[in-house]
Amino acid sequence: MENCLFCKINNGLIPSKTIYEDDLVKVFLDINPATNGHMLIIPKKHYENVMDIDKDFITYSIDLIREKIYPTLKEKLNCKGLTISQNNGLGQEVKHYHIHLIPRYENDCDKHTYNEELLKPIDEIYEVLTK
Amino acid sequence: MENCLFCKINNGLIPSKTIYEDDLVKVFLDINPATNGHMLIIPKKHYENVMDIDKDFITYSIDLIREKIYPTLKEKLNCKGLTISQNNGLGQEVKHYHIHLIPRYENDCDKHTYNEELLKPIDEIYEVLTK
Repeated sequence: MENCLFCKINNGLIPSKTIYEDDLVKVFLDINPATNGHMLIIPKKHYENVMDIDKDFITYSIDLIREKIYPTLKEKLNCKGLTISQNNGLGQEVKHYHIHLIPRYENDCDKHTYNEELLKPIDEIYEVLTK
Repeated sequence: MENCLFCKINNGLIPSKTIYEDDLVKVFLDINPATNGHMLIIPKKHYENVMDIDKDFITYSIDLIREKIYPTLKEKLNCKGLTISQNNGLGQEVKHYHIHLIPRYENDCDKHTYNEELLKPIDEIYEVLTK
């Protein structure tokens, strides 16, 4: 969809730090991360929110999360939990359906800021998920 | 499962403010709400988290959200958005799979506290969803 930020990311018109990609989804780092490794899963096709999303995309994402992403995040980032969150309407900054994956760490509510050093395993995660 | 708080809520051993209920799910108010109308969807059967949840429960919940709950919350609570969130491991207080439904309002990040008056439509919501 024209003028949609995430459609532009899907099309490569805007760069993103890609973690995983296939014909249906793109997974990339959130540019305003809540914790280290905060990433978004988006469909390649444009949907706005929970009201119009294809449910197959959701089950596909759940498989991806539990078979690949969450185990890899635990191993590579040493996170102790994962918050899966999705905003609709007010609170949704980009009107292209997206699922936040927020790795959780001890005391991360105490303003856990972005840390380049801790994110070094991101390239390894990409390798694991795309191999 | 013995000693599971949400299994006890499912079985009626611990009271909850029920919003909707059928053979597969129970929807009830969070006792520590982030915003007015903050509720949880839980499966009647015990699952721990995203790793073992039956995906049919997720698609069933998505149908329930978009066909019944979200439209009713917009109408009755006048919310402007809905955050759908699910914690796993660290950050998950009760180890029985649950989906948070957090109605969103203007400026709700400025510590939107629980307000009995604003919650009066909850009983109307129950009527709409269970009719």
